[in-house]
Order: sequence, then C-alpha cells, then structure tokens
Amino acid sequence: MSELIDRLEDKIVQRREASPDSSYVASLFAQGRSKIAQKVGEEATETVIAALVGDTKALTNEAADLIFHLMVLLAERGLSMNDVLVELERREGLSGLDEKASRQK
Amino acid sequence: MSELIDRLEDKIVQRREASPDSSYVASLFAQGRSKIAQKVGEEATETVIAALVGDTKALTNEAADLIFHLMVLLAERGLSMNDVLVELERREGLSGLDEKASRQK
Amino acid sequence: MSELIDRLEDKIVQRREASPDSSYVASLFAQGRSKIAQKVGEEATETVIAALVGDTKALTNEAADLIFHLMVLLAERGLSMNDVLVELERREGLSGLDEKASRQK
Amino acid sequence: MSELIDRLEDKIVQRREASPDSSYVASLFAQGRSKIAQKVGEEATETVIAALVGDTKALTNEAADLIFHLMVLLAERGLSMNDVLVELERREGLSGLDEKASRQK
Repeated sequence: MSELIDRLEDKIVQRREASPDSSYVASLFAQGRSKIAQKVGEEATETVIAALVGDTKALTNEAADLIFHLMVLLAERGLSMNDVLVELERREGLSGLDEKASRQK
Repeated sequence: MSELIDRLEDKIVQRREASPDSSYVASLFAQGRSKIAQKVGEEATETVIAALVGDTKALTNEAADLIFHLMVLLAERGLSMNDVLVELERREGLSGLDEKASRQK
Repeated sequence: MSELIDRLEDKIVQRREASPDSSYVASLFAQGRSKIAQKVGEEATETVIAALVGDTKALTNEAADLIFHLMVLLAERGLSMNDVLVELERREGLSGLDEKASRQK
Repeated sequence: MSELIDRLEDKIVQRREASPDSSYVASLFAQGRSKIAQKVGEEATETVIAALVGDTKALTNEAADLIFHLMVLLAERGLSMNDVLVELERREGLSGLDEKASRQK
C-alpha cells in the first residue's frame, strides 16, 4: 500500500470529526452520502472532459480530484482505497488482470 | 508508491501492444481515447449507484473497476497513477489537503 | 406538449408489461430502477463525449438515447416528461428561465 | 413539437448574445462547450441520485435541470431538441421504438 494513500485516508478519517466550517472534508461528510457520491460523479465527468480536450496537467488535476473524492466516499461507507486495491490484487492474482476485468463485464 | 499499482500499470502498458482479441486492455486501447473515457464515466456512475444502494462488496467492486479504467485512461495520455498521487502529495505538502481541495473548487 | 413525446411515453408504459425477452423497454424495467438510472448516466457520458469530439449526427444520436432512457427512468418513478416540462414552464412563468436556472444552483 | 420546448430554445438562442453578467445562459456560452458539457454530466449525476434516493419532486427538478442544460449544449452545437425528437421519431417510424433502441446498443 502506498504510504501517501494511507496518510491521505488517515487525514480524511480524522477530519470527519472536524467542524464543517473549517474543513472541506468535514463539510462533505456533513452534507451526507448523496452529496459525496455526487462529487465523485462530477469529478469523473471533469476527468472525462480533461482526457478528451485538456492537457496532461488538467487531466492530472481532475484525476487527483476524482481519487480524493472517491477516498471520501469509500470512508463514508467504512471502506478504504486499500480494500479496492486488495480487490484489484485478487483479480490479478487469480488468473490475470485482463481476464478478470473482462470476466466481470 | 504502492507496488501493486506499479505492477498493474506495468501490465496495462505491456498489454497495450497485445492483440485486441486476446486482451481486454488491448481492446480498450484499440477502441481509442473516447471509448476509454466513456468507460471511466460509466464505472463512475456505477460507483455512485453502488455507494447509494449497494452493499460494501458492490461498492468495492465498482471502485476497483473505476480505478482500473482510470489507470488505462491515464496510460493512454502518457500518464500514470503515480503522477496523480504526486499531485495529491503536492497539495497536501504545500498547505494541507483540506485547504488544497477547497481552494480548487 | 409534443405529440411525439406523448406517443413515446405511452409506448414505454405499454411495454413495461411486455416480456423482457421481446422488448428492450421491458428488459430495462425487469432489471430495475438502479439499472435504468445507470443507463441514464451512461448515455449522459456518451452525450458529453459526442458534444466534445463527435459530429452533429453523433450528438443527435446520443442525446436521443439520453432522452429515451430518461423517459424510462421517469416512468419507473411514475413521472413523465410532461411533469418535467411543466416544471420548466413554472420556472419560466414565474420570473424568467434564466433567473430560475440561476437561483437553484 | 412542444410549444414550450420551442419557446425555451428561442430564449436560449436569444440569451446567447446577452451579457454573461446578467444571464445564466449567456454565462454558460461564455464559458464554452466543455463547461456546458460538464453541466450536462453533473445534472445527469444528480438525476441518477434523485431517482435512487430522492422523492418525485427532487427527480422532477433534476430532470428539468438536465433537459435545460442539454438544450443549451445542443444549441451550442447548432442543434435543437427538435432534431433529437425527429431522430426518436425516425427510430419509432422505421420499425418500432423498442427495436431501434435495442439495435443501437
């Protein structure tokens, strides 16, 4: 697991208890699951647009926003990026990434 | 950086050159940037839905699909998840994750 | 109200009771609300992509898919496109479309 | 064609030339195609969420936002909702709505 991902997720969990006025993360949690999910959808749209018409800096920025809000959404449901990577590892370990990705479609 | 993320991205780059018939990743690259971006958008929608009405297993699966296709999209533009994590680290390092996430809205 | 919209929505409601094997609309209803919502999200992504990198024919086709699946989603919740147009008319009638659209952001 | 849709689209086209400071529609056009497409993606996400966890009023509101921004996006590409409805009519007229919708998947 990436130490950075761990560190970011630790901060997200800590800030969940902060004041919504002082913390963007706390304000997301205060607005609830639907609002956090909405942000993930919005950042995904921005990532798609940046991939098609933006430069690599724009795509990097939008993908960072998407990953960040996905971590918040996972935390809201009691999950972490580690759980997601474990699932990716399981798919890869069983019989190859490609086959797994293909199988589930 | 997570070794798993590195390993997955290495595989994605390797499979880019494989036959689209034998590899899901190669078939994505063969269909082009718009199709890969479309998959990111679709998996994001499925992640949003799983977060709202699915169990944690469903959310983990959809988030894994989203991360996987995002890695393919980044690779198509010559980027990697590492570039995205570096950007997240930069935001955190400069003056705090919260502030950065908030600033860019 | 557009007669075509009425006619399309009548068909959607009629086909809701058809066999999922013989009717695409029936198969959507059989798969349930989450699946129909997912289709709306997917067609929206395809509309966004067509708007940015497609020709006008592609955009027309994707927007038609989006409108069609939105009508199915509305029907699934007991609503119709007419309800949506009434809401748009209400916003326009009260104090101008622009103001209403702006107000609710 | 619905007179309301015609009227709304006439207003959208008129306001395209207004000052971005005084008109929400003008501000959308001033921000450009990518921004308008982004709004369509965002409103679609909100429609999906309202369909799954909102009441019928919320769904009606979000669907109205989606239709409105779709009309702006179509206008930006020189198209209208009428072009989209003509395409839906063509599919229906040729050999039935269901078949057409299914065929294109």
